[in-house]
Amino acid sequence: MKPVCLVIGAGAGIGGNVARRFAREDYHAVLCRRSDQEGLKRLVSTIEAEGGTASGYLLNAIEEGSIESRVEAVESEIGPVEVAVYNLGAQIGNRSLEDTSHKAFEMGWRLATFGLFRLAQVVCPLMEGRGHGTLLVTSATAAMRGNPGQHSHAAAMGGRRLLCQTLNAEYGPKGVHVAHLVVDGSVDAPDTLGKMLGPERYRKLRETRGDGLMQPDKIADTFWHIAQQHRSVWTHELDLRPFSDSPWWNE
Amino acid sequence: MKPVCLVIGAGAGIGGNVARRFAREDYHAVLCRRSDQEGLKRLVSTIEAEGGTASGYLLNAIEEGSIESRVEAVESEIGPVEVAVYNLGAQIGNRSLEDTSHKAFEMGWRLATFGLFRLAQVVCPLMEGRGHGTLLVTSATAAMRGNPGQHSHAAAMGGRRLLCQTLNAEYGPKGVHVAHLVVDGSVDAPDTLGKMLGPERYRKLRETRGDGLMQPDKIADTFWHIAQQHRSVWTHELDLRPFSDSPWWNE
Amino acid sequence: MKPVCLVIGAGAGIGGNVARRFAREDYHAVLCRRSDQEGLKRLVSTIEAEGGTASGYLLNAIEEGSIESRVEAVESEIGPVEVAVYNLGAQIGNRSLEDTSHKAFEMGWRLATFGLFRLAQVVCPLMEGRGHGTLLVTSATAAMRGNPGQHSHAAAMGGRRLLCQTLNAEYGPKGVHVAHLVVDGSVDAPDTLGKMLGPERYRKLRETRGDGLMQPDKIADTFWHIAQQHRSVWTHELDLRPFSDSPWWNE
Amino acid sequence: MKPVCLVIGAGAGIGGNVARRFAREDYHAVLCRRSDQEGLKRLVSTIEAEGGTASGYLLNAIEEGSIESRVEAVESEIGPVEVAVYNLGAQIGNRSLEDTSHKAFEMGWRLATFGLFRLAQVVCPLMEGRGHGTLLVTSATAAMRGNPGQHSHAAAMGGRRLLCQTLNAEYGPKGVHVAHLVVDGSVDAPDTLGKMLGPERYRKLRETRGDGLMQPDKIADTFWHIAQQHRSVWTHELDLRPFSDSPWWNE
Repeated sequence: MKPVCLVIGAGAGIGGNVARRFAREDYHAVLCRRSDQEGLKRLVSTIEAEGGTASGYLLNAIEEGSIESRVEAVESEIGPVEVAVYNLGAQIGNRSLEDTSHKAFEMGWRLATFGLFRLAQVVCPLMEGRGHGTLLVTSATAAMRGNPGQHSHAAAMGGRRLLCQTLNAEYGPKGVHVAHLVVDGSVDAPDTLGKMLGPERYRKLRETRGDGLMQPDKIADTFWHIAQQHRSVWTHELDLRPFSDSPWWNE
Repeated sequence: MKPVCLVIGAGAGIGGNVARRFAREDYHAVLCRRSDQEGLKRLVSTIEAEGGTASGYLLNAIEEGSIESRVEAVESEIGPVEVAVYNLGAQIGNRSLEDTSHKAFEMGWRLATFGLFRLAQVVCPLMEGRGHGTLLVTSATAAMRGNPGQHSHAAAMGGRRLLCQTLNAEYGPKGVHVAHLVVDGSVDAPDTLGKMLGPERYRKLRETRGDGLMQPDKIADTFWHIAQQHRSVWTHELDLRPFSDSPWWNE
Repeated sequence: MKPVCLVIGAGAGIGGNVARRFAREDYHAVLCRRSDQEGLKRLVSTIEAEGGTASGYLLNAIEEGSIESRVEAVESEIGPVEVAVYNLGAQIGNRSLEDTSHKAFEMGWRLATFGLFRLAQVVCPLMEGRGHGTLLVTSATAAMRGNPGQHSHAAAMGGRRLLCQTLNAEYGPKGVHVAHLVVDGSVDAPDTLGKMLGPERYRKLRETRGDGLMQPDKIADTFWHIAQQHRSVWTHELDLRPFSDSPWWNE
Repeated sequence: MKPVCLVIGAGAGIGGNVARRFAREDYHAVLCRRSDQEGLKRLVSTIEAEGGTASGYLLNAIEEGSIESRVEAVESEIGPVEVAVYNLGAQIGNRSLEDTSHKAFEMGWRLATFGLFRLAQVVCPLMEGRGHGTLLVTSATAAMRGNPGQHSHAAAMGGRRLLCQTLNAEYGPKGVHVAHLVVDGSVDAPDTLGKMLGPERYRKLRETRGDGLMQPDKIADTFWHIAQQHRSVWTHELDLRPFSDSPWWNE
């Protein structure tokens, strides 16, 4: 029975590429995303075409019990979740305080913070029982500082970052590796950046930016490395950005 | 008509003392707390006995519309909220991940993050309209790093801190001063520390710790100073702790 | 005998205004600066005209023994250094790595880091002996993050910040208050900004920026407040910037 | 001609293992250390026995011109320095402020900060000329916060960290990858930990701590990974610690 790499938020960007990377290393990839059954099938087929195995599920992470029951089903039907990847974003663009509805503020928290809490609550004890496991959390600079218009996003990601620290503090000594990976740049992802820009502008941006767009299969290499670190040398937090970008802390 | 200093979370510790300090400087203090009508009356009476004016209201901050309607009533019946103090904590003690219920996790967010968002959403535009105003946010080291057992608290306070940054980024240039004040130590507060320890242990601790317990009237001096800073030299974040304590970042 | 407020780096900006503020509160101000005997006399005269007392000395902080012998002379001839202010900057403008000479890199360290170490080494034990005292350190965002071209400055100020933390860790419990004050904006100071810009551009900037230039006498108010904090509620670090500026951490 | 991995500070811990790791990946390893010609030979022999190539040099990093001339000789005689590793520590144990001599304070800076500046000044332009290259800097938690007794070390490492940021800001866009790697734990290194403890205590510690001691060959895996990151997804900073240790930010 293969170990499982479970990805919550598996589009054609970071999530799908991380799933594919682990599948290549003989994990069974379980891909979950909210919508787009076709896109999901395509990702699973790509992995299978490369000789890997994968399963895909539509999953509405903010629905009560959705993450929990998916983890339980995977554990009983497929195999132990050795690596869980929480890759849900909560960026809604810049909105002034007055234009940020209660609902939008709460939704940010449900996606970015509470969903991770729920995933951790179900996978960490299982990993603890096995004495090992890895929880990789994709994050953003909104977890490090609050920019204008980012009320919902920054409050939610700031919570996510410190939640990763409390999880690490409790589960690290039990053999569970929790890592907070700050993606500080634009990812070359057709499902997010591509849809935001439209096909024409997306094509042009890819041409002009080149390696200034973060390549998600290369991000996946670092996710894989972190999951492979020997337990005497674990990384809890790192940043990732294109060589050509200024880090968030620079002027 | 006096300017108003509105305190959300006005017990006998930081909140009550900040209210009293502003009342002494000729603000009308509006004290809000969830329960203890007697304690509330006592605080109002103390302020009045010192020659100040104050009003007290029971207010359940997590109830929909509670903060919003209180601000509206104060603005129409008492005076403009020149200074708003968000002093609600969300510390529930250390709980393992498995012992942290969904409800407890959400409650932390509602008290520490969402309540501040709601207060800001109603007072910041009013202050912007007047061209000035101050929002002082009491915070904790759980806003800076996530300790073991602090899943609910740290996620909520981490969100609070970055929310203060987004509020500052949007409202600073409009003349509204938002400050995040990190209280890194035990406050000599009968309503929180005192109730937690019981009268006997509390009495003893006060004797042995002396100035190692943060005196809330002295904390209030710094809150007052920050609210008085000239707008060319505003502080957004500072820490406060007893001389005898190690800061959170030290070993 | 009045307590002394010793200012290392006393020009017409932050340093001179802090000296003046303390002199108004019945401290004897001791002003030290590297050059400009006339400017020094003017600052002393201004303080005296306001009814205060002050002394001025030319002092080359990087010269061996200069700070040490000045402190000793002040302690024996004037009075106990109750408050020491280290206000020497080390900004040399942006220089590429190749254009940053060994000498410039070392000079940054000598001014920004080593000079503070030397001051601390002589005043902290004296303050410890008296059971109280305050060391206020003016700092910059170069202490928080390294910007392009800031090789010398950022390395030196990054060292300064952590030195403040080690001093605080060792001397806080002994009653000595060490504070690191991050000035994140342009200060309306004729001796630095004024000389950099020239009289005409400086005049115009003051007109157009208004409260967007940090007023040094207002900065002095916060220095004074920090020095007055009760020892149960000390601030170790805070930031200061104009309402109209973006903090360094924002995009 | 093989690319060169130059290690400044190549003992039997992180430095030697990083050299060995790169040698296994077909780099020529150049090992530099201040003393112990025998240890140096042993490291070179180990690499050669594994089929790699390496050279060893004694190098006193604080001596004027030492790093510069070594880099020049390597570039002209061996090959291009594709990866430079700055692995010199400056930990001198805890010393009170009064027991920290001017010399010790300066030595910390010369080793931890100025030496890195000098290395960068000679290798970064060479790497820029080639359009690629990597500078890996081993660091410590003393770069993040100042603990008691760490006056020299923290001031020096705090400077090192911000210097890494200024180097990254200037050279990242030119294709040179600068990374700051915070080692937050005890490394199982005979040349440092071993000598500090003596053979008997070192043996016992290894038995009792097990994976709680950071294994330097595993640290080398992460150094290797960072040097291999695609330039669209570079890491500038990460931490490394044993699963069983509390991070520096936790209580």
